[in-house]
Amino acid sequence: MLEAFIAPKSVAVIGASRDPTKLGYGVLSNIIKSGFPGKIYPINPNADEILGLKCYPSILSVPDEVDLAVIVVPAPIVLNVAEECGKKGVKGLIVISAGFKEVGKEGLEREKSLVQIARNYGFRILGPNILGLIDTVIPLNASFAATMALPGSIAFMSQSGALCTSVLDMSLVEGIGFSRFVSLGNKADLNEVDFLELWEEDPNTRVIAAYLEGVTNGTRFLETARRVTRSKPIIAIKAGTTGAGAKAVSSHTGTLAGSEKAYEAAFKQTGIIRARSVQELFDLAVGFARQPILEKNAIAIVTNAGGPGIMAVDACERVGLQVATLSPETIAYLKENLPPAANVFNPVDVLGDALADRYALALEAVLKDPNVGGVIVILTPQVMTQVEETARAVGEIVSRYSKPVLGCFMGRATTEKGARILREYRIPNYEVPERAVAVFKAMWEYREWLEKPIPELPTFEFDADTIRKVIDQARKEGRLLLGDSEARLILEACGIKGPRTALARTPEEAVAIAEEIGYPVVMKIASPDIIHKTDIGGVKLNIQSPSEVRDTFDLLVYRATRYMPDATIWGCQVQQMVKGGKEVIVGMSRDPQFGPLVMFGLGGIYVEILKDVSFRIAPLSREEAEEMVNEVKTIQLLKGARGERPSDIKAVVDVILRVARLVTDFPEIVEMDINPLMVLEEGKGAMAVDMRITLSP
Amino acid sequence: MLEAFIAPKSVAVIGASRDPTKLGYGVLSNIIKSGFPGKIYPINPNADEILGLKCYPSILSVPDEVDLAVIVVPAPIVLNVAEECGKKGVKGLIVISAGFKEVGKEGLEREKSLVQIARNYGFRILGPNILGLIDTVIPLNASFAATMALPGSIAFMSQSGALCTSVLDMSLVEGIGFSRFVSLGNKADLNEVDFLELWEEDPNTRVIAAYLEGVTNGTRFLETARRVTRSKPIIAIKAGTTGAGAKAVSSHTGTLAGSEKAYEAAFKQTGIIRARSVQELFDLAVGFARQPILEKNAIAIVTNAGGPGIMAVDACERVGLQVATLSPETIAYLKENLPPAANVFNPVDVLGDALADRYALALEAVLKDPNVGGVIVILTPQVMTQVEETARAVGEIVSRYSKPVLGCFMGRATTEKGARILREYRIPNYEVPERAVAVFKAMWEYREWLEKPIPELPTFEFDADTIRKVIDQARKEGRLLLGDSEARLILEACGIKGPRTALARTPEEAVAIAEEIGYPVVMKIASPDIIHKTDIGGVKLNIQSPSEVRDTFDLLVYRATRYMPDATIWGCQVQQMVKGGKEVIVGMSRDPQFGPLVMFGLGGIYVEILKDVSFRIAPLSREEAEEMVNEVKTIQLLKGARGERPSDIKAVVDVILRVARLVTDFPEIVEMDINPLMVLEEGKGAMAVDMRITLSP
Repeated sequence: MLEAFIAPKSVAVIGASRDPTKLGYGVLSNIIKSGFPGKIYPINPNADEILGLKCYPSILSVPDEVDLAVIVVPAPIVLNVAEECGKKGVKGLIVISAGFKEVGKEGLEREKSLVQIARNYGFRILGPNILGLIDTVIPLNASFAATMALPGSIAFMSQSGALCTSVLDMSLVEGIGFSRFVSLGNKADLNEVDFLELWEEDPNTRVIAAYLEGVTNGTRFLETARRVTRSKPIIAIKAGTTGAGAKAVSSHTGTLAGSEKAYEAAFKQTGIIRARSVQELFDLAVGFARQPILEKNAIAIVTNAGGPGIMAVDACERVGLQVATLSPETIAYLKENLPPAANVFNPVDVLGDALADRYALALEAVLKDPNVGGVIVILTPQVMTQVEETARAVGEIVSRYSKPVLGCFMGRATTEKGARILREYRIPNYEVPERAVAVFKAMWEYREWLEKPIPELPTFEFDADTIRKVIDQARKEGRLLLGDSEARLILEACGIKGPRTALARTPEEAVAIAEEIGYPVVMKIASPDIIHKTDIGGVKLNIQSPSEVRDTFDLLVYRATRYMPDATIWGCQVQQMVKGGKEVIVGMSRDPQFGPLVMFGLGGIYVEILKDVSFRIAPLSREEAEEMVNEVKTIQLLKGARGERPSDIKAVVDVILRVARLVTDFPEIVEMDINPLMVLEEGKGAMAVDMRITLSP
Repeated sequence: MLEAFIAPKSVAVIGASRDPTKLGYGVLSNIIKSGFPGKIYPINPNADEILGLKCYPSILSVPDEVDLAVIVVPAPIVLNVAEECGKKGVKGLIVISAGFKEVGKEGLEREKSLVQIARNYGFRILGPNILGLIDTVIPLNASFAATMALPGSIAFMSQSGALCTSVLDMSLVEGIGFSRFVSLGNKADLNEVDFLELWEEDPNTRVIAAYLEGVTNGTRFLETARRVTRSKPIIAIKAGTTGAGAKAVSSHTGTLAGSEKAYEAAFKQTGIIRARSVQELFDLAVGFARQPILEKNAIAIVTNAGGPGIMAVDACERVGLQVATLSPETIAYLKENLPPAANVFNPVDVLGDALADRYALALEAVLKDPNVGGVIVILTPQVMTQVEETARAVGEIVSRYSKPVLGCFMGRATTEKGARILREYRIPNYEVPERAVAVFKAMWEYREWLEKPIPELPTFEFDADTIRKVIDQARKEGRLLLGDSEARLILEACGIKGPRTALARTPEEAVAIAEEIGYPVVMKIASPDIIHKTDIGGVKLNIQSPSEVRDTFDLLVYRATRYMPDATIWGCQVQQMVKGGKEVIVGMSRDPQFGPLVMFGLGGIYVEILKDVSFRIAPLSREEAEEMVNEVKTIQLLKGARGERPSDIKAVVDVILRVARLVTDFPEIVEMDINPLMVLEEGKGAMAVDMRITLSP
């Protein structure tokens, strides 16, 4: 389907121009210069020939088939041209022209019409409002960029065309090569997911790099990215962390959630590696593209200077990488073969006067060592240092081993040549050790991702009818905020337990229920109109006797009617009092891009002050829910800190999974909090003590 | 005193050589090439002339005065040569030769002798084991570096000579200039503090940059750095965060402290800006050297591309910088003068087709705006973009305003020329917005540092005699770990209150004391031999009656003798039971470099699990102690979270200040914990409930 964008046999440039100051000239010229092996058709009603190629007045007058059309005509003409492309049977359109969604209402209408034309004729569109597409595999430079990209194995897509120009400009000097290079622009039709799919099977692409500001379809993005990262790494910048901005939220979860949290969760759940700057994006992309990934968290460092070696160790420690402990054999070998002053432990310091041979000896020794997962070779350009010879020696050795090696030739003026030689051997070079360490860190995280099982979604037997009934009834009555008693019905239907509880309509009923449950009990006013019961003094704990139950009933009803004379009062909930548990919160809010975002954290101050919470997008696998629970620092409190017995974390995971399933199956639920969920001792379960649910209208 | 190192009139090279492969040749050649304006004397007994200069057999045979001698002879000869330098009256020695402390025992002895010679004759030594010294002000290149540094206003010192070579190599390509450039090596005599002092008054130095692995004298470093940062920024890498490694510690504070925490505190208390890599070190140094500092936390961004603008905003948010809200006047002006599609809010997007004039217009408008503190100018090299003209236009405007402006011309191949032009206007350029943002962040922190009052150390009336007596008595008895009762005496002598308490030797005394204090009380076994009282069941809380007091007395004594039959039992402490307070911990451990390191945190799980604690080096000013308290996240719990009444934070600060003073005045105290210090409601003080002190032998 997208073949036209990855292997076109012919390309037309609609709006080709003879004027070198025009984009229509630049694009045509770029296509010709890039060595495109297929046919090229300039389209322009006012020219017979451009750049030595026969020119056609319209795409319809081209005698042969056209796979791909690059459109550089002004926006108002684009629709006509697209219509003609459809008639001609063109399979793909690269719409470089601007003047669409990005300029407001009129542009948006135009963009919609453009997509409609595409749907009618069955062709696909890249853009509009883009730099174009560059492909070093075809090869084809269908863009107005000043230069062609260098060939390589990184596929790059960017929602910002301008960023593409900067990236290209950097890549030329840094020697970074691309297989495919795509400006996504307005994403009227093709979006990030289409290219993920396209590049998933692309043998010319080892790494996918992306600059994203948002994703078009969160669910499809999650599914696709989760699959693609199993076969090749995706490294992405997500810009614009403020997201959709403030919206009215009433739950804890809603307050703590937000677009940034949703993206963080999405990246974690799909194994996408997140970069924080363009520099980091390409540091990582180049590392993954040129070297095998780290199979063991154990970094060796070979250096001709102590200081940078220490900095590398510091950086490893900061990011949680292990500095390898060399085997006794390696240490003995190094001791025997390096000068006495050399440090034979890791970092291996081959000393300032090391020539290429000493580097080679040390590097080979650590690469052979089974205790080593990857190596950073640091070189400072000292008097005796053989920059180029060392680079070559390193390259030769690295090509004989399958462990990742990263260069850190520190400098510029004299080390540049060494960096270039390393590059010939597909060894990336980073100017400072910290950047090399960041690459190994990302590799290790990716390694861990690959080892995670494919998420399996657990199923639960829900009483869907009850849930449906409660929701429908509340909505019918115009109540979108469900309080304790209704929310409890829903949770019970999901198999989430609460304390034993029943509604008492009279003091006598309350006493009967309390006797049945056993003292002490908790009593809460039951009214569909009063959601914040605590605020009005509508909750009493630790009620010990029948007379106290009776008094409390009257007191709560009195307070409720005083607070809201017109409130419907159902009576009081009489509830088993849960003792000895730990408070946690499980909640959900709905993200505009990714849907149900589930939250977990320890209750009370841990949520409110420390904001020590974790998020995942539902539905969830058991492993994801467990990861989510283990991600909050305060989870130690549930694991039995200070000699306490551990709490029932399994039960918490179970509740999270059930909530995730509930909010997936019932999209009407837009927000919910179980707060607190009381977690009892290991084996004794967890109880949803207080809860609320918000429905969509 | 250090005049010889900053303005020498004559330089001798001892060990000068005619052999171009020898360091003695390289150094002499570098001095000549650097254009040193004074006299140069090569010293070599086997040559008459080197590089066209008359050569002397020994320094003693030089006819004139010699200010500075550069020594490149082999280590075993260095002492003789130094002796001769002393006799000659040389004021400074740059000892490049290696073979001293860094090679072990023999070298260490040699180094000590060298220092002794210097002391005898009154000259100073830089090194040994260094690259040398480069000075673009004198000018003088007394090093074996391959090239001279570019002139500039950054003074740089490094404990790693090899790192110097890398930094120089980078600086040449990046156009980074230095005033002074010093390799510190073994720091046998001159160390980082000497150069801080030297450069403090140096009109040619605007910024001090340093690579440090340790400091020679922590106290002097603190004093000097604290003063120097008031007049110029110090930016430093501290490598080797693992520090002195594990040592036996018995206190909470000791477990959580460590060399890294001490350096963090030292940097905070001296206003040193910490860099995490060489790249960051020079990003910051160049920013501070070339631009005025940020006076207002309000960053404006001018860009020709949306994406990078968003990335700049994201980066600002991540580090806590404010994105400026432009004034209505500025917005109106931009609206009127920029194309309709431009974004006139911050980030100001001048659009992809912006020429230099449009950049100029927007930049000047935001610079004029009083709501703006500093500006980042982002440029992506698009088709129409005038890289050089824009750089020049930016430079011209910036020179007319006093606000900091940082360039972010993103690219390399085509933007390089622009970056070079910006540099001519003293505007640094960063390849990605995140790096420019990091510079503004550091500037803002420095700005805040400058606004802090000079720390004043509060004085307290301590009962020093009592403290002295308790300490002496315990040491005399060989007890270095002081438990509750003795530690309490010391704290009371410092004016730190505890619950009312007294020692009961018999059950009857215990009852009398309890009656006097009032019930409930706490009882603890009192024995100099039992420190971990809780562990053996030696503490009972909430004792309500005389009979309970009697029973408890017997029980605790029984348990103590069972646990340790030979223990000296003094009896039981009977103590007022403190209720309703919040637990915090105030502790101290002694850092090998900086001395007393005071810790604060909330007690219990907050310390143990969240490790939410803060450190400062004593003695402390009130502001520092307050800062320390406010640094821990959980302090919110003491400020009255969830509608509670706020706790007496003032009292906590007072305890911290008293502890800081105590451990400064009594260096015998090597570790202490007050855990818990119970903080009562605002105005009601804090009480040291349990405590221990460790003494040095």
